[in-house]
Amino acid sequence: MTATTLKRPAIGVFDSGVGGLTVLRELLRQVPQADYLYFGDTARLPYGSKSAETVAKYAISAADFLVKQGAEHLVIACNTATALAFERIASAVKIPALGVIEPGAETAAAASKSKQAVVIATEGTCASHAYKRALAAKGVEAREKACPLFVPLVEEGWTEHEVTERVAHIYLDGVFSGDFSGADALVLGCTHYPLLKPLLRRVVPAHVAIVDSAEATAKAMAERLDLSSASSGQPLVKFFATDSVDKFRKAGEKFLGCKIENVTHVELES
Amino acid sequence: MTATTLKRPAIGVFDSGVGGLTVLRELLRQVPQADYLYFGDTARLPYGSKSAETVAKYAISAADFLVKQGAEHLVIACNTATALAFERIASAVKIPALGVIEPGAETAAAASKSKQAVVIATEGTCASHAYKRALAAKGVEAREKACPLFVPLVEEGWTEHEVTERVAHIYLDGVFSGDFSGADALVLGCTHYPLLKPLLRRVVPAHVAIVDSAEATAKAMAERLDLSSASSGQPLVKFFATDSVDKFRKAGEKFLGCKIENVTHVELES
Repeated sequence: MTATTLKRPAIGVFDSGVGGLTVLRELLRQVPQADYLYFGDTARLPYGSKSAETVAKYAISAADFLVKQGAEHLVIACNTATALAFERIASAVKIPALGVIEPGAETAAAASKSKQAVVIATEGTCASHAYKRALAAKGVEAREKACPLFVPLVEEGWTEHEVTERVAHIYLDGVFSGDFSGADALVLGCTHYPLLKPLLRRVVPAHVAIVDSAEATAKAMAERLDLSSASSGQPLVKFFATDSVDKFRKAGEKFLGCKIENVTHVELES
Repeated sequence: MTATTLKRPAIGVFDSGVGGLTVLRELLRQVPQADYLYFGDTARLPYGSKSAETVAKYAISAADFLVKQGAEHLVIACNTATALAFERIASAVKIPALGVIEPGAETAAAASKSKQAVVIATEGTCASHAYKRALAAKGVEAREKACPLFVPLVEEGWTEHEVTERVAHIYLDGVFSGDFSGADALVLGCTHYPLLKPLLRRVVPAHVAIVDSAEATAKAMAERLDLSSASSGQPLVKFFATDSVDKFRKAGEKFLGCKIENVTHVELES
Protein backbone atom coordinates (compact mmCIF):
# COMPACT_ATOMS: atom_id res chain seq x y z
CA MET A 1 0.00 0.00 0.00
CA THR A 2 1.50 3.34 -1.00
CA ALA A 3 0.59 6.57 0.70
CA THR A 4 -0.97 9.04 -1.75
CA THR A 5 -0.35 12.73 -1.28
CA LEU A 6 -3.62 14.57 -1.27
CA LYS A 7 -3.27 17.74 -3.25
CA ARG A 8 -5.41 20.84 -2.67
CA PRO A 9 -5.58 23.20 -5.64
CA ALA A 10 -4.49 26.82 -4.99
CA ILE A 11 -6.93 29.31 -6.48
CA GLY A 12 -6.02 32.95 -6.96
CA VAL A 13 -8.99 35.34 -6.81
CA PHE A 14 -8.63 38.96 -7.70
CA ASP A 15 -10.75 42.08 -7.74
CA SER A 16 -10.28 45.83 -7.66
CA GLY A 17 -11.33 45.83 -4.01
CA VAL A 18 -13.52 43.93 -1.59
CA GLY A 19 -16.47 43.23 -3.93
CA GLY A 20 -14.82 40.06 -5.20
CA LEU A 21 -15.13 38.67 -1.68
CA THR A 22 -18.75 37.80 -2.60
CA VAL A 23 -17.19 35.47 -5.19
CA LEU A 24 -14.68 34.10 -2.67
CA ARG A 25 -17.55 33.53 -0.23
CA GLU A 26 -19.32 31.34 -2.80
CA LEU A 27 -16.07 29.56 -3.70
CA LEU A 28 -15.47 28.71 -0.04
CA ARG A 29 -19.03 27.36 0.16
CA GLN A 30 -19.00 25.42 -3.10
CA VAL A 31 -15.30 24.47 -3.37
CA PRO A 32 -13.99 23.99 0.18
CA GLN A 33 -11.43 21.46 -1.11
CA ALA A 34 -9.18 24.26 -2.41
CA ASP A 35 -6.91 26.89 -0.80
CA TYR A 36 -7.26 30.55 -1.74
CA LEU A 37 -5.16 33.64 -2.39
CA TYR A 38 -7.29 36.79 -2.63
CA PHE A 39 -5.89 40.01 -4.11
CA GLY A 40 -7.75 43.32 -3.67
CA ASP A 41 -6.27 46.20 -5.68
CA THR A 42 -7.66 48.71 -3.20
CA ALA A 43 -5.08 51.43 -3.92
CA ARG A 44 -6.30 51.69 -7.50
CA LEU A 45 -10.03 50.97 -7.15
CA PRO A 46 -12.59 51.39 -8.53
CA TYR A 47 -12.08 49.86 -11.96
CA GLY A 48 -15.73 50.49 -12.94
CA SER A 49 -15.24 54.02 -14.27
CA LYS A 50 -11.78 53.50 -15.85
CA SER A 51 -10.73 52.81 -19.42
CA ALA A 52 -10.01 49.35 -20.87
CA GLU A 53 -6.27 50.12 -21.18
CA THR A 54 -5.94 51.14 -17.53
CA VAL A 55 -8.02 48.21 -16.26
CA ALA A 56 -6.07 45.68 -18.38
CA LYS A 57 -2.74 46.97 -17.08
CA TYR A 58 -3.85 46.83 -13.44
CA ALA A 59 -5.48 43.42 -13.79
CA ILE A 60 -2.46 41.82 -15.43
CA SER A 61 -0.09 43.07 -12.75
CA ALA A 62 -2.44 41.65 -10.08
CA ALA A 63 -2.72 38.31 -11.87
CA ASP A 64 1.08 38.07 -12.22
CA PHE A 65 1.42 38.65 -8.50
CA LEU A 66 -0.99 35.82 -7.69
CA VAL A 67 0.85 33.42 -10.00
CA LYS A 68 4.13 34.27 -8.24
CA GLN A 69 2.42 33.51 -4.92
CA GLY A 70 1.60 30.01 -6.15
CA ALA A 71 -1.88 30.29 -7.68
CA GLU A 72 -2.64 27.42 -10.08
CA HIS A 73 -6.02 28.76 -11.19
CA LEU A 74 -7.14 32.35 -11.56
CA VAL A 75 -10.62 33.72 -10.89
CA ILE A 76 -11.16 37.24 -12.18
CA ALA A 77 -13.75 38.17 -9.55
CA CYS A 78 -14.36 41.59 -11.05
CA ASN A 79 -16.97 42.17 -13.72
CA THR A 80 -15.25 45.24 -15.16
CA ALA A 81 -11.88 43.50 -15.53
CA THR A 82 -13.56 40.45 -17.05
CA ALA A 83 -15.61 42.62 -19.40
CA LEU A 84 -12.79 44.84 -20.56
CA ALA A 85 -9.72 42.66 -20.38
CA PHE A 86 -10.50 38.93 -20.00
CA GLU A 87 -8.68 37.79 -23.13
CA ARG A 88 -5.67 39.99 -22.47
CA ILE A 89 -5.37 38.72 -18.90
CA ALA A 90 -5.99 35.07 -19.82
CA SER A 91 -3.31 35.16 -22.52
CA ALA A 92 -0.83 37.07 -20.31
CA VAL A 93 -0.90 34.59 -17.40
CA LYS A 94 0.39 31.01 -17.51
CA ILE A 95 -2.49 29.40 -15.55
CA PRO A 96 -6.14 28.80 -16.55
CA ALA A 97 -8.36 31.84 -15.97
CA LEU A 98 -12.07 32.04 -15.24
CA GLY A 99 -14.06 35.27 -15.41
CA VAL A 100 -17.44 36.07 -13.88
CA ILE A 101 -19.33 36.92 -17.08
CA GLU A 102 -19.45 33.62 -18.94
CA PRO A 103 -20.80 31.67 -15.92
CA GLY A 104 -23.33 34.44 -15.16
CA ALA A 105 -24.54 34.47 -18.76
CA GLU A 106 -24.83 30.69 -18.81
CA THR A 107 -26.92 30.59 -15.64
CA ALA A 108 -29.15 33.39 -16.93
CA ALA A 109 -29.67 31.58 -20.23
CA ALA A 110 -30.67 28.43 -18.35
CA ALA A 111 -33.04 30.38 -16.07
CA SER A 112 -34.76 32.44 -18.78
CA LYS A 113 -37.78 31.03 -20.59
CA SER A 114 -38.57 34.24 -22.45
CA LYS A 115 -34.97 34.49 -23.66
CA GLN A 116 -34.79 38.11 -22.52
CA ALA A 117 -32.60 39.22 -19.62
CA VAL A 118 -31.70 42.48 -17.94
CA VAL A 119 -28.08 42.99 -16.87
CA ILE A 120 -27.20 45.57 -14.21
CA ALA A 121 -23.54 46.56 -13.81
CA THR A 122 -21.06 49.44 -13.63
CA GLU A 123 -20.74 51.88 -16.51
CA GLY A 124 -17.54 50.21 -17.73
CA THR A 125 -19.09 46.74 -17.83
CA CYS A 126 -22.25 47.99 -19.59
CA ALA A 127 -20.33 50.04 -22.14
CA SER A 128 -18.24 46.98 -23.07
CA HIS A 129 -21.44 45.00 -23.91
CA ALA A 130 -19.61 41.85 -22.75
CA TYR A 131 -22.76 40.43 -21.11
CA LYS A 132 -24.86 41.30 -24.16
CA ARG A 133 -22.48 39.36 -26.41
CA ALA A 134 -22.18 36.39 -24.03
CA LEU A 135 -25.97 36.18 -23.71
CA ALA A 136 -26.57 36.62 -27.45
CA ALA A 137 -24.27 33.64 -28.07
CA LYS A 138 -26.71 31.61 -25.94
CA GLY A 139 -29.81 32.91 -27.71
CA VAL A 140 -30.76 35.45 -25.02
CA GLU A 141 -31.46 39.09 -25.81
CA ALA A 142 -30.11 41.47 -23.16
CA ARG A 143 -30.86 44.98 -22.01
CA GLU A 144 -27.96 46.49 -20.05
CA LYS A 145 -28.46 49.13 -17.38
CA ALA A 146 -25.61 50.91 -15.58
CA CYS A 147 -26.40 51.50 -11.89
CA PRO A 148 -23.43 53.60 -10.71
CA LEU A 149 -24.94 54.49 -7.32
CA PHE A 150 -25.36 50.88 -6.18
CA VAL A 151 -21.66 50.41 -5.29
CA PRO A 152 -21.42 53.53 -3.07
CA LEU A 153 -24.80 52.71 -1.49
CA VAL A 154 -23.58 49.20 -0.61
CA GLU A 155 -20.30 50.65 0.69
CA GLU A 156 -22.31 53.09 2.84
CA GLY A 157 -24.00 50.01 4.33
CA TRP A 158 -27.42 51.07 3.03
CA THR A 159 -28.33 47.63 1.68
CA GLU A 160 -31.84 47.80 3.21
CA HIS A 161 -32.37 51.56 3.10
CA GLU A 162 -35.36 53.48 1.71
CA VAL A 163 -32.98 55.62 -0.37
CA THR A 164 -31.47 52.55 -2.01
CA GLU A 165 -34.95 51.17 -2.73
CA ARG A 166 -35.93 54.50 -4.34
CA VAL A 167 -32.73 54.51 -6.44
CA ALA A 168 -33.40 50.90 -7.49
CA HIS A 169 -36.90 51.87 -8.65
CA ILE A 170 -35.52 54.84 -10.59
CA TYR A 171 -32.93 52.64 -12.30
CA LEU A 172 -35.10 49.58 -12.92
CA ASP A 173 -38.80 50.47 -13.27
CA GLY A 174 -38.32 51.65 -16.83
CA VAL A 175 -36.13 48.69 -17.75
CA PHE A 176 -38.64 45.86 -17.32
CA SER A 177 -41.02 47.62 -19.71
CA GLY A 178 -41.81 48.04 -23.40
CA ASP A 179 -39.99 45.38 -25.44
CA PHE A 180 -38.53 43.98 -22.22
CA SER A 181 -41.69 43.68 -20.10
CA GLY A 182 -41.41 39.91 -20.61
CA ALA A 183 -37.75 39.68 -19.47
CA ASP A 184 -37.53 37.02 -16.77
CA ALA A 185 -33.91 37.17 -15.57
CA LEU A 186 -31.90 39.90 -13.83
CA VAL A 187 -28.13 39.36 -13.91
CA LEU A 188 -26.19 40.98 -11.04
CA GLY A 189 -23.20 42.01 -13.13
CA CYS A 190 -21.16 43.56 -10.33
CA THR A 191 -19.68 41.84 -7.28
CA HIS A 192 -21.20 44.40 -4.90
CA TYR A 193 -24.75 43.68 -5.98
CA PRO A 194 -25.35 40.32 -4.21
CA LEU A 195 -25.68 42.37 -1.00
CA LEU A 196 -28.70 44.07 -2.58
CA LYS A 197 -30.45 40.82 -3.52
CA PRO A 198 -33.23 40.99 -0.89
CA LEU A 199 -33.98 44.63 -1.78
CA LEU A 200 -33.89 43.98 -5.55
CA ARG A 201 -36.24 41.03 -5.02
CA ARG A 202 -38.86 43.56 -3.84
CA VAL A 203 -38.18 45.99 -6.70
CA VAL A 204 -38.24 43.79 -9.81
CA PRO A 205 -41.35 41.88 -11.00
CA ALA A 206 -42.00 38.62 -9.13
CA HIS A 207 -41.50 36.41 -12.19
CA VAL A 208 -37.90 37.61 -12.65
CA ALA A 209 -35.12 35.22 -11.58
CA ILE A 210 -32.16 37.01 -9.96
CA VAL A 211 -28.88 35.55 -11.22
CA ASP A 212 -25.86 36.07 -9.02
CA SER A 213 -22.60 35.88 -11.01
CA ALA A 214 -20.71 35.00 -7.83
CA GLU A 215 -22.71 31.79 -7.31
CA ALA A 216 -22.48 30.94 -11.02
CA THR A 217 -18.71 31.46 -11.08
CA ALA A 218 -18.10 29.24 -8.06
CA LYS A 219 -20.21 26.53 -9.69
CA ALA A 220 -18.20 26.81 -12.91
CA MET A 221 -14.94 26.51 -10.94
CA ALA A 222 -16.22 23.40 -9.11
CA GLU A 223 -17.02 21.80 -12.49
CA ARG A 224 -13.63 22.72 -13.91
CA LEU A 225 -11.55 21.21 -11.11
CA ASP A 226 -10.99 17.51 -10.56
CA LEU A 227 -11.60 17.40 -6.84
CA SER A 228 -11.78 13.61 -6.48
CA SER A 229 -8.25 13.44 -5.05
CA ALA A 230 -8.31 16.74 -3.14
CA SER A 231 -7.91 16.52 0.62
CA SER A 232 -10.72 17.64 2.84
CA GLY A 233 -10.21 20.06 5.72
CA GLN A 234 -10.56 23.81 6.12
CA PRO A 235 -9.43 25.98 3.21
CA LEU A 236 -6.41 28.17 3.86
CA VAL A 237 -7.09 31.76 2.77
CA LYS A 238 -4.48 34.49 2.38
CA PHE A 239 -5.43 38.07 1.56
CA PHE A 240 -3.37 40.77 -0.19
CA ALA A 241 -4.35 44.44 -0.53
CA THR A 242 -2.59 47.36 -2.21
CA ASP A 243 -4.04 49.99 0.17
CA SER A 244 -4.40 49.87 3.97
CA VAL A 245 -4.72 46.40 5.48
CA ASP A 246 -7.06 47.70 8.20
CA LYS A 247 -9.40 49.30 5.72
CA PHE A 248 -9.46 46.08 3.70
CA ARG A 249 -10.32 44.04 6.75
CA LYS A 250 -13.05 46.39 7.95
CA ALA A 251 -14.68 46.90 4.57
CA GLY A 252 -14.28 43.28 3.53
CA GLU A 253 -16.00 41.45 6.34
CA LYS A 254 -19.54 42.33 5.27
CA PHE A 255 -18.80 41.04 1.76
CA LEU A 256 -17.17 37.82 2.92
CA GLY A 257 -19.67 37.31 5.73
CA CYS A 258 -17.01 36.31 8.24
CA LYS A 259 -13.82 37.51 9.96
CA ILE A 260 -10.83 38.42 7.80
CA GLU A 261 -7.35 37.71 9.08
CA ASN A 262 -4.00 37.20 7.41
CA VAL A 263 -3.98 40.32 5.19
CA THR A 264 -0.65 41.43 3.71
CA HIS A 265 0.02 44.84 2.20
CA VAL A 266 1.49 44.72 -1.31
CA GLU A 267 2.95 47.46 -3.53
CA LEU A 268 2.68 46.85 -7.24
CA GLU A 269 4.58 48.75 -9.90
CA SER A 270 2.01 50.21 -12.23
CA MET B 1 11.89 103.75 -23.53
CA THR B 2 12.53 100.05 -22.84
CA ALA B 3 9.96 97.39 -23.50
CA THR B 4 9.07 95.50 -20.32
CA THR B 5 8.29 91.80 -20.59
CA LEU B 6 5.03 91.11 -18.86
CA LYS B 7 5.24 87.84 -17.00
CA ARG B 8 2.22 85.63 -16.34
CA PRO B 9 2.67 83.20 -13.43
CA ALA B 10 2.19 79.48 -14.25
CA ILE B 11 -0.01 77.78 -11.66
CA GLY B 12 -0.17 74.00 -11.36
CA VAL B 13 -3.47 72.66 -10.02
CA PHE B 14 -3.91 69.05 -9.12
CA ASP B 15 -6.66 66.76 -7.94
CA SER B 16 -7.46 63.06 -7.97
CA GLY B 17 -9.94 63.69 -10.77
CA VAL B 18 -12.27 66.36 -12.09
CA GLY B 19 -13.52 67.75 -8.76
CA GLY B 20 -10.56 70.15 -8.56
CA LEU B 21 -11.93 71.84 -11.67
CA THR B 22 -14.30 73.70 -9.33
CA VAL B 23 -11.14 75.24 -7.85
CA LEU B 24 -9.70 75.95 -11.31
CA ARG B 25 -13.00 77.58 -12.27
CA GLU B 26 -12.68 79.97 -9.34
CA LEU B 27 -9.00 80.59 -10.10
CA LEU B 28 -9.83 81.49 -13.71
CA ARG B 29 -12.50 83.89 -12.42
CA GLN B 30 -10.44 85.49 -9.64
CA VAL B 31 -6.91 85.20 -11.09
CA PRO B 32 -7.21 85.53 -14.89
CA GLN B 33 -3.70 87.04 -15.05
CA ALA B 34 -2.12 83.57 -14.68
CA ASP B 35 -1.73 80.51 -16.91
CA TYR B 36 -2.74 77.07 -15.65
CA LEU B 37 -1.65 73.43 -15.78
CA TYR B 38 -4.32 71.09 -14.41
CA PHE B 39 -3.50 67.50 -13.47
CA GLY B 40 -6.31 64.97 -12.82
CA ASP B 41 -5.07 61.64 -11.47
CA THR B 42 -8.11 59.87 -12.91
CA ALA B 43 -6.47 56.44 -13.20
CA ARG B 44 -6.00 56.31 -9.42
CA LEU B 45 -9.08 58.17 -8.17
CA PRO B 46 -10.76 58.44 -5.76
CA TYR B 47 -8.36 59.47 -3.02
CA GLY B 48 -11.20 59.91 -0.50
CA SER B 49 -11.28 56.33 0.71
CA LYS B 50 -7.53 55.63 0.59
CA SER B 51 -4.85 55.67 3.27
CA ALA B 52 -2.54 58.62 4.00
CA GLU B 53 0.50 56.71 2.68
CA THR B 54 -1.12 55.93 -0.65
CA VAL B 55 -2.53 59.44 -1.07
CA ALA B 56 0.82 61.07 -0.24
CA LYS B 57 2.67 58.91 -2.76
CA TYR B 58 0.18 59.67 -5.53
CA ALA B 59 0.02 63.37 -4.76
CA ILE B 60 3.79 63.84 -4.72
CA SER B 61 4.21 62.12 -8.08
CA ALA B 62 1.50 64.38 -9.53
CA ALA B 63 3.09 67.50 -8.05
CA ASP B 64 6.52 66.53 -9.42
CA PHE B 65 5.01 66.15 -12.86
CA LEU B 66 3.51 69.66 -12.72
CA VAL B 67 6.81 71.18 -11.63
CA LYS B 68 8.53 69.49 -14.59
CA GLN B 69 5.88 71.00 -16.86
CA GLY B 70 6.80 74.47 -15.65
CA ALA B 71 4.47 75.17 -12.74
CA GLU B 72 5.78 77.94 -10.45
CA HIS B 73 3.00 77.66 -7.87
CA LEU B 74 1.10 74.56 -6.79
CA VAL B 75 -2.56 74.40 -5.77
CA ILE B 76 -3.54 71.13 -4.13
CA ALA B 77 -7.17 71.27 -5.26
CA CYS B 78 -8.08 68.10 -3.41
CA ASN B 79 -9.28 68.15 0.17
CA THR B 80 -8.16 64.60 0.91
CA ALA B 81 -4.63 65.16 -0.37
CA THR B 82 -4.43 68.47 1.52
CA ALA B 83 -5.79 66.87 4.69
CA LEU B 84 -3.60 63.79 4.64
CA ALA B 85 -0.41 64.91 2.97
CA PHE B 86 -0.08 68.71 2.70
CA GLU B 87 3.18 68.97 4.62
CA ARG B 88 4.75 66.02 2.88
CA ILE B 89 3.82 67.41 -0.55
CA ALA B 90 4.85 70.98 0.29
CA SER B 91 8.26 69.86 1.52
CA ALA B 92 8.80 67.46 -1.41
CA VAL B 93 8.22 70.06 -4.14
CA LYS B 94 10.47 73.04 -4.87
CA ILE B 95 7.68 75.60 -5.47
CA PRO B 96 5.23 77.23 -3.02
CA ALA B 97 2.18 75.06 -2.34
CA LEU B 98 -1.34 76.10 -1.35
CA GLY B 99 -3.96 73.64 -0.11
CA VAL B 100 -7.74 74.07 0.08
CA ILE B 101 -8.18 73.60 3.83
CA GLU B 102 -6.44 76.63 5.31
CA PRO B 103 -8.31 79.12 3.05
CA GLY B 104 -11.62 77.33 3.69
CA ALA B 105 -11.08 77.42 7.44
CA GLU B 106 -10.12 81.10 7.34
CA THR B 107 -13.23 82.08 5.41
CA ALA B 108 -15.42 80.02 7.76
CA ALA B 109 -13.85 81.65 10.81
CA ALA B 110 -14.54 85.09 9.34
CA ALA B 111 -18.14 84.14 8.48
CA SER B 112 -19.04 82.52 11.81
CA LYS B 113 -20.38 84.68 14.64
CA SER B 114 -21.23 81.72 16.90
CA LYS B 115 -17.72 80.29 16.41
CA GLN B 116 -19.19 76.89 15.57
CA ALA B 117 -18.95 75.37 12.09
CA VAL B 118 -19.95 72.12 10.43
CA VAL B 119 -17.53 70.61 7.91
CA ILE B 120 -18.74 68.09 5.34
CA ALA B 121 -16.15 66.05 3.45
CA THR B 122 -15.02 62.56 2.41
CA GLU B 123 -14.26 59.93 5.02
CA GLY B 124 -10.51 60.42 4.59
CA THR B 125 -10.70 64.17 5.11
CA CYS B 126 -12.97 63.85 8.16
CA ALA B 127 -10.88 61.10 9.75
CA SER B 128 -7.77 63.29 9.45
CA HIS B 129 -9.47 66.09 11.45
CA ALA B 130 -7.47 68.59 9.38
CA TYR B 131 -10.38 71.04 9.20
CA LYS B 132 -11.09 70.65 12.92
CA ARG B 133 -7.49 71.57 13.74
CA ALA B 134 -7.37 74.47 11.26
CA LEU B 135 -10.65 75.88 12.63
CA ALA B 136 -9.65 75.36 16.28
CA ALA B 137 -6.51 77.43 15.61
CA LYS B 138 -8.86 80.27 14.60
CA GLY B 139 -11.12 79.86 17.64
CA VAL B 140 -13.89 77.95 15.85
CA GLU B 141 -15.26 74.67 17.13
CA ALA B 142 -16.01 72.20 14.33
CA ARG B 143 -18.24 69.19 13.88
CA GLU B 144 -17.11 67.00 10.97
CA LYS B 145 -19.52 64.86 8.99
CA ALA B 146 -18.46 62.42 6.24
CA CYS B 147 -20.91 62.41 3.33
CA PRO B 148 -19.60 59.58 1.13
CA LEU B 149 -22.64 59.46 -1.18
CA PHE B 150 -22.37 63.09 -2.29
CA VAL B 151 -19.50 62.46 -4.73
CA PRO B 152 -21.23 59.60 -6.59
CA LEU B 153 -24.52 61.55 -6.58
CA VAL B 154 -22.80 64.56 -8.17
CA GLU B 155 -21.06 62.26 -10.65
CA GLU B 156 -24.45 60.72 -11.54
CA GLY B 157 -25.56 64.28 -12.36
CA TRP B 158 -28.22 64.25 -9.62
CA THR B 159 -27.31 67.69 -8.25
CA GLU B 160 -30.99 68.73 -8.08
CA HIS B 161 -32.56 65.32 -7.49
CA GLU B 162 -35.06 64.34 -4.78
CA VAL B 163 -32.81 61.40 -3.80
CA THR B 164 -29.86 63.73 -3.21
CA GLU B 165 -32.05 66.06 -1.15
CA ARG B 166 -33.23 63.10 0.96
CA VAL B 167 -29.61 61.94 1.45
CA ALA B 168 -28.58 65.48 2.41
CA HIS B 169 -31.34 65.57 5.06
CA ILE B 170 -30.23 62.17 6.40
CA TYR B 171 -26.62 63.32 6.63
CA LEU B 172 -27.23 66.84 7.94
CA ASP B 173 -30.48 67.12 9.92
CA GLY B 174 -28.89 65.59 13.00
CA VAL B 175 -25.71 67.63 12.65
CA PHE B 176 -27.13 71.13 13.15
CA SER B 177 -28.65 70.02 16.46
CA GLY B 178 -27.84 69.60 20.13
CA ASP B 179 -24.59 71.38 20.98
CA PHE B 180 -24.32 72.50 17.35
CA SER B 181 -27.80 73.93 16.82
CA GLY B 182 -26.17 77.38 16.88
CA ALA B 183 -23.52 76.55 14.26
CA ASP B 184 -23.68 79.21 11.55
CA ALA B 185 -21.19 78.03 8.90
CA LEU B 186 -21.10 74.96 6.66
CA VAL B 187 -17.74 74.29 5.03
CA LEU B 188 -17.87 72.37 1.73
CA GLY B 189 -14.75 70.29 2.36
CA CYS B 190 -14.74 68.41 -0.94
CA THR B 191 -14.30 69.82 -4.43
CA HIS B 192 -17.42 68.05 -5.71
CA TYR B 193 -19.71 69.75 -3.26
CA PRO B 194 -19.94 73.25 -4.80
CA LEU B 195 -22.26 71.66 -7.39
CA LEU B 196 -24.65 70.85 -4.53
CA LYS B 197 -24.70 74.42 -3.16
CA PRO B 198 -28.25 75.32 -4.28
CA LEU B 199 -29.62 72.04 -2.90
CA LEU B 200 -27.71 72.34 0.39
CA ARG B 201 -28.99 75.91 0.73
CA ARG B 202 -32.51 74.41 1.02
CA VAL B 203 -31.43 71.67 3.45
CA VAL B 204 -29.44 73.54 6.11
CA PRO B 205 -30.94 76.22 8.40
CA ALA B 206 -31.32 79.65 6.78
CA HIS B 207 -28.86 81.35 9.14
CA VAL B 208 -25.99 79.08 8.07
CA ALA B 209 -23.37 80.55 5.70
CA ILE B 210 -22.14 78.07 3.11
CA VAL B 211 -18.37 78.33 2.69
CA ASP B 212 -16.95 77.06 -0.57
CA SER B 213 -13.27 76.09 -0.23
CA ALA B 214 -12.80 76.57 -3.99
CA GLU B 215 -13.70 80.27 -3.80
CA ALA B 216 -11.62 80.71 -0.64
CA THR B 217 -8.57 79.04 -2.20
CA ALA B 218 -8.70 81.19 -5.34
CA LYS B 219 -8.94 84.28 -3.15
CA ALA B 220 -5.90 83.15 -1.12
CA MET B 221 -3.93 82.59 -4.34
CA ALA B 222 -4.84 86.05 -5.63
CA GLU B 223 -3.53 87.57 -2.37
CA ARG B 224 -0.34 85.54 -2.52
CA LEU B 225 0.67 86.54 -6.05
CA ASP B 226 2.07 89.89 -7.07
CA LEU B 227 -0.06 90.47 -10.14
CA SER B 228 0.82 94.14 -10.66
CA SER B 229 3.21 93.32 -13.51
CA ALA B 230 1.27 90.36 -14.98
CA SER B 231 0.00 90.76 -18.52
CA SER B 232 -3.70 90.74 -19.16
CA GLY B 233 -5.30 88.52 -21.79
CA GLN B 234 -6.92 85.10 -21.73
CA PRO B 235 -5.33 82.45 -19.46
CA LEU B 236 -3.74 79.49 -21.22
CA VAL B 237 -4.95 76.22 -19.69
CA LYS B 238 -3.45 72.78 -20.31
CA PHE B 239 -5.00 69.63 -18.88
CA PHE B 240 -3.33 66.31 -18.05
CA ALA B 241 -5.16 63.10 -17.06
CA THR B 242 -3.85 59.65 -16.10
CA ASP B 243 -6.93 57.79 -17.42
CA SER B 244 -8.87 58.30 -20.66
CA VAL B 245 -8.72 61.81 -22.12
CA ASP B 246 -12.30 61.52 -23.44
CA LYS B 247 -13.68 60.55 -20.06
CA PHE B 248 -11.84 63.46 -18.46
CA ARG B 249 -13.26 65.91 -20.97
CA LYS B 250 -16.82 64.62 -20.66
CA ALA B 251 -16.86 64.38 -16.88
CA GLY B 252 -14.94 67.61 -16.39
CA GLU B 253 -17.04 70.10 -18.28
CA LYS B 254 -19.83 70.27 -15.69
CA PHE B 255 -17.27 71.00 -12.97
CA LEU B 256 -15.40 73.64 -14.97
CA GLY B 257 -18.58 75.11 -16.42
CA CYS B 258 -17.13 75.42 -19.92
CA LYS B 259 -15.57 73.43 -22.77
CA ILE B 260 -12.38 71.48 -22.06
CA GLU B 261 -9.80 71.17 -24.81
CA ASN B 262 -6.10 70.49 -24.82
CA VAL B 263 -6.08 67.34 -22.62
CA THR B 264 -2.96 65.13 -22.69
CA HIS B 265 -2.81 61.58 -21.37
CA VAL B 266 0.03 60.95 -18.89
CA GLU B 267 1.36 57.73 -17.36
CA LEU B 268 2.97 58.11 -13.94
CA GLU B 269 5.15 55.53 -12.26
CA SER B 270 3.54 54.71 -8.95
